[in-house]
Amino acid sequence: MNFCSHCGKTVVTMVPRGDNRERFVCESCDTVHYQNPNNVAGTILTWQDKVLLCKRAIDPRYGLWTLPAGFMENNETVAQAAARESMEEANARSGPLNLFGVFSLPYISQVYMMFSGRLLSDDISPGLESLEVGLFTRDQIPWEEIAFPVITHSLELFFKYGADSGRVHQTWFSRNADRVIQIHGET
Amino acid sequence: MNFCSHCGKTVVTMVPRGDNRERFVCESCDTVHYQNPNNVAGTILTWQDKVLLCKRAIDPRYGLWTLPAGFMENNETVAQAAARESMEEANARSGPLNLFGVFSLPYISQVYMMFSGRLLSDDISPGLESLEVGLFTRDQIPWEEIAFPVITHSLELFFKYGADSGRVHQTWFSRNADRVIQIHGET
Repeated sequence: MNFCSHCGKTVVTMVPRGDNRERFVCESCDTVHYQNPNNVAGTILTWQDKVLLCKRAIDPRYGLWTLPAGFMENNETVAQAAARESMEEANARSGPLNLFGVFSLPYISQVYMMFSGRLLSDDISPGLESLEVGLFTRDQIPWEEIAFPVITHSLELFFKYGADSGRVHQTWFSRNADRVIQIHGET
Repeated sequence: MNFCSHCGKTVVTMVPRGDNRERFVCESCDTVHYQNPNNVAGTILTWQDKVLLCKRAIDPRYGLWTLPAGFMENNETVAQAAARESMEEANARSGPLNLFGVFSLPYISQVYMMFSGRLLSDDISPGLESLEVGLFTRDQIPWEEIAFPVITHSLELFFKYGADSGRVHQTWFSRNADRVIQIHGET
Protein backbone atom coordinates (compact mmCIF):
# COMPACT_ATOMS: atom_id res chain seq x y z
CA MET A 1 0.00 0.00 0.00
CA ASN A 2 1.39 3.36 -1.13
CA PHE A 3 -1.59 5.73 -1.30
CA CYS A 4 -4.67 6.38 0.81
CA SER A 5 -7.66 4.74 -0.89
CA HIS A 6 -9.90 7.39 0.65
CA CYS A 7 -8.14 10.68 -0.23
CA GLY A 8 -5.30 9.65 -2.55
CA LYS A 9 -2.42 11.11 -0.47
CA THR A 10 0.72 9.08 0.39
CA VAL A 11 0.35 6.81 3.43
CA VAL A 12 2.96 6.28 6.15
CA THR A 13 3.69 3.23 8.27
CA MET A 14 3.22 3.91 11.98
CA VAL A 15 1.69 2.56 15.18
CA PRO A 16 -1.56 4.52 15.68
CA ARG A 17 -2.28 5.89 19.16
CA GLY A 18 -3.91 3.20 21.32
CA ASP A 19 -2.72 0.46 18.95
CA ASN A 20 0.25 -1.91 19.33
CA ARG A 21 1.29 -2.67 15.77
CA GLU A 22 2.29 -0.87 12.61
CA ARG A 23 -0.48 0.09 10.19
CA PHE A 24 -0.71 2.06 6.98
CA VAL A 25 -1.97 5.47 8.11
CA CYS A 26 -3.02 8.53 6.10
CA GLU A 27 -1.96 11.61 8.04
CA SER A 28 -3.91 13.79 5.61
CA CYS A 29 -7.40 12.39 6.30
CA ASP A 30 -6.59 10.42 9.49
CA THR A 31 -7.63 7.05 8.06
CA VAL A 32 -6.01 3.88 9.43
CA HIS A 33 -5.91 1.18 6.74
CA TYR A 34 -6.12 -2.18 8.49
CA GLN A 35 -5.09 -5.34 6.67
CA ASN A 36 -6.62 -8.60 7.89
CA PRO A 37 -6.69 -12.30 7.02
CA ASN A 38 -8.96 -13.69 4.29
CA ASN A 39 -11.27 -16.65 4.60
CA VAL A 40 -11.32 -19.41 2.01
CA ALA A 41 -14.54 -21.46 2.06
CA GLY A 42 -14.76 -24.85 0.38
CA THR A 43 -16.46 -28.21 0.25
CA ILE A 44 -15.87 -31.94 0.41
CA LEU A 45 -18.89 -33.15 -1.56
CA THR A 46 -19.63 -36.84 -2.02
CA TRP A 47 -21.59 -38.93 -4.49
CA GLN A 48 -21.77 -42.50 -3.18
CA ASP A 49 -18.14 -43.28 -2.14
CA LYS A 50 -16.64 -40.63 -4.40
CA VAL A 51 -15.41 -37.09 -3.72
CA LEU A 52 -15.71 -34.16 -6.11
CA LEU A 53 -12.43 -32.64 -7.28
CA CYS A 54 -11.69 -29.84 -9.77
CA LYS A 55 -8.63 -29.43 -11.98
CA ARG A 56 -7.52 -25.81 -11.74
CA ALA A 57 -7.76 -23.63 -14.87
CA ILE A 58 -6.14 -20.68 -13.07
CA ASP A 59 -2.86 -19.83 -11.40
CA PRO A 60 -1.45 -20.64 -8.94
CA ARG A 61 -1.17 -24.41 -9.44
CA TYR A 62 -2.75 -24.45 -12.89
CA GLY A 63 -3.54 -28.03 -13.93
CA LEU A 64 -3.47 -29.49 -10.42
CA TRP A 65 -6.48 -30.91 -8.59
CA THR A 66 -8.30 -29.26 -5.71
CA LEU A 67 -11.52 -29.28 -3.72
CA PRO A 68 -14.03 -26.54 -4.66
CA ALA A 69 -12.92 -23.54 -2.57
CA GLY A 70 -12.38 -19.82 -2.88
CA PHE A 71 -12.32 -16.48 -1.12
CA MET A 72 -15.40 -15.66 0.91
CA GLU A 73 -17.18 -12.53 -0.37
CA ASN A 74 -18.77 -9.70 1.59
CA ASN A 75 -22.43 -10.14 2.57
CA GLU A 76 -22.53 -13.92 2.59
CA THR A 77 -22.23 -16.58 5.31
CA VAL A 78 -19.33 -19.02 5.36
CA ALA A 79 -21.59 -21.89 4.28
CA GLN A 80 -23.12 -19.79 1.50
CA ALA A 81 -19.59 -19.03 0.28
CA ALA A 82 -18.74 -22.74 0.24
CA ALA A 83 -21.91 -23.62 -1.70
CA ARG A 84 -21.32 -20.76 -4.15
CA GLU A 85 -17.76 -21.84 -4.86
CA SER A 86 -18.94 -25.42 -5.52
CA MET A 87 -21.47 -24.11 -8.03
CA GLU A 88 -19.00 -21.73 -9.70
CA GLU A 89 -16.18 -24.23 -10.04
CA ALA A 90 -18.06 -27.46 -10.74
CA ASN A 91 -21.77 -26.60 -11.26
CA ALA A 92 -22.25 -28.80 -8.21
CA ARG A 93 -25.50 -28.61 -6.26
CA SER A 94 -25.12 -29.71 -2.66
CA GLY A 95 -27.45 -30.61 0.19
CA PRO A 96 -26.93 -29.26 3.73
CA LEU A 97 -23.31 -28.42 4.52
CA ASN A 98 -21.65 -29.23 7.85
CA LEU A 99 -18.51 -27.50 9.07
CA PHE A 100 -15.73 -30.08 8.73
CA GLY A 101 -12.51 -28.17 9.46
CA VAL A 102 -11.03 -24.78 10.30
CA PHE A 103 -7.44 -24.49 9.16
CA SER A 104 -5.24 -21.45 9.84
CA LEU A 105 -2.40 -20.65 7.42
CA PRO A 106 -0.81 -17.67 9.19
CA TYR A 107 2.18 -17.44 6.80
CA ILE A 108 -0.23 -16.35 4.05
CA SER A 109 -2.86 -14.87 6.43
CA GLN A 110 -5.63 -17.20 5.33
CA VAL A 111 -8.22 -19.27 7.19
CA TYR A 112 -9.72 -22.23 5.32
CA MET A 113 -13.20 -23.30 6.39
CA MET A 114 -14.15 -26.59 4.77
CA PHE A 115 -17.65 -28.09 4.80
CA SER A 116 -18.79 -31.63 4.07
CA GLY A 117 -22.02 -32.53 2.31
CA ARG A 118 -23.65 -34.66 -0.35
CA LEU A 119 -24.06 -33.85 -4.01
CA LEU A 120 -27.72 -33.71 -5.02
CA SER A 121 -26.81 -35.15 -8.40
CA ASP A 122 -23.73 -36.36 -10.26
CA ASP A 123 -24.50 -33.89 -13.04
CA ILE A 124 -21.36 -31.80 -12.60
CA SER A 125 -19.33 -29.84 -15.13
CA PRO A 126 -16.33 -27.49 -15.14
CA GLY A 127 -16.96 -23.81 -14.35
CA LEU A 128 -14.72 -21.02 -15.68
CA GLU A 129 -11.95 -21.70 -13.17
CA SER A 130 -11.81 -25.48 -13.79
CA LEU A 131 -10.33 -27.42 -16.71
CA GLU A 132 -12.08 -30.59 -15.65
CA VAL A 133 -14.13 -31.93 -12.72
CA GLY A 134 -14.51 -35.50 -11.54
CA LEU A 135 -15.67 -37.91 -8.85
CA PHE A 136 -12.93 -39.98 -7.24
CA THR A 137 -12.82 -42.87 -4.77
CA ARG A 138 -10.03 -42.70 -2.24
CA ASP A 139 -7.84 -44.94 -4.42
CA GLN A 140 -8.57 -42.96 -7.57
CA ILE A 141 -7.58 -39.58 -6.12
CA PRO A 142 -4.46 -38.19 -7.85
CA TRP A 143 -2.68 -37.71 -4.50
CA GLU A 144 0.56 -36.55 -6.14
CA GLU A 145 -1.23 -33.87 -8.16
CA ILE A 146 -3.14 -32.02 -5.42
CA ALA A 147 -2.77 -28.23 -5.63
CA PHE A 148 -2.28 -27.27 -1.95
CA PRO A 149 -1.18 -28.99 1.29
CA VAL A 150 -4.38 -27.87 3.05
CA ILE A 151 -6.43 -29.71 0.41
CA THR A 152 -4.41 -32.92 0.83
CA HIS A 153 -4.86 -32.56 4.60
CA SER A 154 -8.64 -32.05 4.27
CA LEU A 155 -8.96 -35.17 2.11
CA GLU A 156 -6.81 -37.24 4.48
CA LEU A 157 -8.92 -36.19 7.47
CA PHE A 158 -12.08 -36.91 5.51
CA PHE A 159 -11.05 -40.46 4.63
CA LYS A 160 -9.74 -41.09 8.15
CA TYR A 161 -12.71 -39.74 10.17
CA GLY A 162 -15.56 -39.49 7.65
CA ALA A 163 -18.15 -36.75 7.38
CA ASP A 164 -20.31 -37.83 10.30
CA SER A 165 -17.87 -37.86 13.23
CA GLY A 166 -19.42 -34.64 14.56
CA ARG A 167 -15.90 -33.27 14.91
CA VAL A 168 -14.74 -29.99 13.48
CA HIS A 169 -11.07 -30.51 12.75
CA GLN A 170 -8.71 -27.71 13.78
CA THR A 171 -5.20 -27.49 12.46
CA TRP A 172 -2.70 -24.80 11.65
CA PHE A 173 0.07 -24.84 9.10
CA SER A 174 3.50 -23.26 9.28
CA ARG A 175 6.05 -22.74 6.48
CA ASN A 176 9.75 -22.39 7.19
CA ALA A 177 12.44 -20.51 5.25
CA ASP A 178 12.92 -23.52 2.97
CA ARG A 179 9.17 -23.38 2.26
CA VAL A 180 8.63 -26.70 4.05
CA ILE A 181 5.07 -26.94 5.39
CA GLN A 182 4.43 -28.32 8.87
CA ILE A 183 1.00 -29.26 10.23
CA HIS A 184 0.13 -28.57 13.89
CA GLY A 185 -2.82 -29.26 16.17
CA GLU A 186 -4.67 -26.03 16.91
CA THR A 187 -4.20 -24.70 20.43
CA MET B 1 -12.66 3.42 -1.91
CA ASN B 2 -11.84 6.34 -4.22
CA PHE B 3 -8.17 5.95 -5.13
CA CYS B 4 -5.84 3.08 -6.03
CA SER B 5 -3.74 2.23 -2.97
CA HIS B 6 -0.98 1.02 -5.29
CA CYS B 7 -0.58 3.91 -7.79
CA GLY B 8 -2.81 6.68 -6.41
CA LYS B 9 -5.03 7.10 -9.51
CA THR B 10 -8.85 7.16 -9.30
CA VAL B 11 -10.51 3.73 -9.24
CA VAL B 12 -13.65 2.73 -11.10
CA THR B 13 -16.35 0.21 -10.18
CA MET B 14 -16.65 -2.60 -12.72
CA VAL B 15 -16.90 -6.36 -13.14
CA PRO B 16 -13.39 -7.54 -14.06
CA ARG B 17 -13.05 -10.02 -16.94
CA GLY B 18 -13.61 -13.58 -15.69
CA ASP B 19 -15.31 -12.29 -12.53
CA ASN B 20 -19.02 -12.08 -11.74
CA ARG B 21 -19.32 -9.15 -9.35
CA GLU B 22 -18.39 -5.49 -9.17
CA ARG B 23 -14.97 -4.60 -7.77
CA PHE B 24 -12.93 -1.45 -7.35
CA VAL B 25 -10.52 -1.56 -10.28
CA CYS B 26 -7.59 0.69 -11.20
CA GLU B 27 -7.48 0.99 -14.96
CA SER B 28 -4.13 2.79 -14.71
CA CYS B 29 -2.11 -0.03 -13.07
CA ASP B 30 -4.63 -2.90 -13.65
CA THR B 31 -5.05 -3.68 -9.95
CA VAL B 32 -8.32 -5.23 -8.74
CA HIS B 33 -9.01 -4.20 -5.12
CA TYR B 34 -10.96 -7.02 -3.51
CA GLN B 35 -12.89 -6.41 -0.30
CA ASN B 36 -13.57 -9.42 1.91
CA PRO B 37 -15.13 -10.28 5.29
CA ASN B 38 -13.21 -9.87 8.54
CA ASN B 39 -12.84 -12.46 11.26
CA VAL B 40 -13.46 -11.61 14.90
CA ALA B 41 -11.83 -14.07 17.31
CA GLY B 42 -12.87 -14.28 20.95
CA THR B 43 -13.11 -16.39 24.06
CA ILE B 44 -15.49 -17.73 26.68
CA LEU B 45 -13.05 -18.21 29.56
CA THR B 46 -14.13 -19.73 32.85
CA TRP B 47 -12.89 -19.64 36.42
CA GLN B 48 -14.87 -22.21 38.42
CA ASP B 49 -18.50 -21.53 37.46
CA LYS B 50 -17.82 -17.98 36.35
CA VAL B 51 -17.30 -16.45 32.91
CA LEU B 52 -14.95 -13.56 32.11
CA LEU B 53 -16.59 -10.41 30.75
CA CYS B 54 -15.16 -7.02 29.85
CA LYS B 55 -16.86 -3.63 29.98
CA ARG B 56 -16.07 -1.79 26.75
CA ALA B 57 -13.94 1.37 26.96
CA ILE B 58 -14.32 2.01 23.22
CA ASP B 59 -17.05 2.67 20.71
CA PRO B 60 -19.27 1.14 19.51
CA ARG B 61 -21.23 0.15 22.62
CA TYR B 62 -19.00 2.00 25.09
CA GLY B 63 -19.86 0.95 28.65
CA LEU B 64 -21.60 -2.30 27.72
CA TRP B 65 -20.30 -5.77 28.56
CA THR B 66 -18.75 -8.21 26.12
CA LEU B 67 -16.63 -11.33 25.84
CA PRO B 68 -12.97 -10.72 24.98
CA ALA B 69 -12.95 -10.56 21.17
CA GLY B 70 -11.46 -8.55 18.35
CA PHE B 71 -10.34 -8.51 14.74
CA MET B 72 -7.93 -11.27 13.76
CA GLU B 73 -4.57 -9.88 12.58
CA ASN B 74 -2.38 -11.04 9.70
CA ASN B 75 0.15 -13.76 10.46
CA GLU B 76 -1.64 -15.39 13.38
CA THR B 77 -3.93 -18.41 13.76
CA VAL B 78 -7.56 -17.99 14.81
CA ALA B 79 -6.83 -19.44 18.26
CA GLN B 80 -3.77 -17.20 18.67
CA ALA B 81 -5.97 -14.22 17.86
CA ALA B 82 -8.51 -15.27 20.49
CA ALA B 83 -5.80 -15.71 23.15
CA ARG B 84 -4.20 -12.37 22.21
CA GLU B 85 -7.50 -10.52 22.49
CA SER B 86 -8.10 -12.05 25.95
CA MET B 87 -4.70 -10.84 27.07
CA GLU B 88 -5.10 -7.37 25.54
CA GLU B 89 -8.59 -6.73 26.91
CA ALA B 90 -8.43 -8.44 30.31
CA ASN B 91 -4.81 -9.51 30.94
CA ALA B 92 -6.31 -13.00 30.99
CA ARG B 93 -4.07 -16.02 30.59
CA SER B 94 -5.89 -19.05 29.23
CA GLY B 95 -5.21 -22.75 28.90
CA PRO B 96 -5.92 -24.68 25.68
CA LEU B 97 -8.70 -23.13 23.60
CA ASN B 98 -11.37 -25.19 21.84
CA LEU B 99 -13.43 -23.88 18.96
CA PHE B 100 -16.91 -23.31 20.37
CA GLY B 101 -18.83 -21.49 17.63
CA VAL B 102 -18.60 -20.02 14.13
CA PHE B 103 -21.12 -17.26 13.60
CA SER B 104 -21.61 -15.47 10.27
CA LEU B 105 -22.89 -11.87 10.29
CA PRO B 106 -23.23 -11.23 6.55
CA TYR B 107 -24.91 -7.83 6.97
CA ILE B 108 -21.66 -6.47 8.36
CA SER B 109 -19.40 -8.98 6.56
CA GLN B 110 -17.96 -10.45 9.74
CA VAL B 111 -17.35 -14.00 10.96
CA TYR B 112 -17.08 -14.52 14.72
CA MET B 113 -15.01 -17.48 15.85
CA MET B 114 -15.44 -18.04 19.58
CA PHE B 115 -13.29 -20.41 21.65
CA SER B 116 -13.89 -21.86 25.10
CA GLY B 117 -11.20 -22.48 27.68
CA ARG B 118 -10.20 -22.12 31.30
CA LEU B 119 -8.46 -19.18 32.92
CA LEU B 120 -5.10 -20.16 34.37
CA SER B 121 -5.65 -17.69 37.21
CA ASP B 122 -8.30 -15.23 38.36
CA ASP B 123 -5.67 -12.49 38.28
CA ILE B 124 -7.36 -10.42 35.58
CA SER B 125 -7.39 -6.66 35.02
CA PRO B 126 -8.68 -4.22 32.41
CA GLY B 127 -6.58 -3.63 29.31
CA LEU B 128 -6.68 -0.38 27.31
CA GLU B 129 -9.99 -1.22 25.63
CA SER B 130 -11.80 -2.20 28.85
CA LEU B 131 -13.20 -0.02 31.63
CA GLU B 132 -13.61 -2.99 33.93
CA VAL B 133 -13.37 -6.79 33.83
CA GLY B 134 -15.15 -9.34 35.97
CA LEU B 135 -16.10 -12.96 36.57
CA PHE B 136 -19.83 -13.70 36.50
CA THR B 137 -22.00 -16.71 37.23
CA ARG B 138 -24.93 -17.23 34.89
CA ASP B 139 -27.23 -15.38 37.27
CA GLN B 140 -24.82 -12.52 37.79
CA ILE B 141 -24.35 -11.74 34.08
CA PRO B 142 -25.77 -8.29 33.18
CA TRP B 143 -27.90 -9.82 30.39
CA GLU B 144 -29.55 -6.48 29.57
CA GLU B 145 -26.21 -4.74 29.18
CA ILE B 146 -24.46 -7.02 26.68
CA ALA B 147 -22.85 -5.13 23.79
CA PHE B 148 -23.76 -7.31 20.79
CA PRO B 149 -26.40 -9.95 19.93
CA VAL B 150 -23.67 -12.43 18.91
CA ILE B 151 -22.19 -12.17 22.41
CA THR B 152 -25.55 -12.79 24.09
CA HIS B 153 -26.01 -15.77 21.74
CA SER B 154 -22.55 -17.18 22.58
CA LEU B 155 -23.24 -16.94 26.30
CA GLU B 156 -26.68 -18.55 25.93
CA LEU B 157 -25.23 -21.47 23.96
CA PHE B 158 -22.43 -21.82 26.50
CA PHE B 159 -24.80 -22.08 29.45
CA LYS B 160 -27.14 -24.41 27.55
CA TYR B 161 -24.56 -26.85 26.13
CA GLY B 162 -21.41 -26.25 28.17
CA ALA B 163 -17.84 -26.18 26.91
CA ASP B 164 -17.37 -29.92 26.63
CA SER B 165 -20.20 -30.98 24.31
CA GLY B 166 -17.68 -31.46 21.49
CA ARG B 167 -20.01 -29.41 19.29
CA VAL B 168 -18.97 -26.42 17.29
CA HIS B 169 -22.07 -24.25 17.10
CA GLN B 170 -22.91 -22.76 13.73
CA THR B 171 -25.34 -19.92 13.38
CA TRP B 172 -25.86 -16.95 11.12
CA PHE B 173 -27.48 -13.65 11.86
CA SER B 174 -29.58 -11.43 9.61
CA ARG B 175 -30.67 -7.83 10.14
CA ASN B 176 -33.75 -6.39 8.45
CA ALA B 177 -34.51 -2.81 7.41
CA ASP B 178 -35.79 -2.06 10.92
CA ARG B 179 -32.43 -3.30 12.25
CA VAL B 180 -34.11 -6.30 13.89
CA ILE B 181 -31.65 -9.18 14.27
CA GLN B 182 -32.75 -12.73 13.49
CA ILE B 183 -30.75 -15.84 14.34
CA HIS B 184 -30.66 -18.80 11.93
CA GLY B 185 -29.19 -22.29 11.98
CA GLU B 186 -26.28 -22.47 9.57
CA THR B 187 -26.94 -24.50 6.43
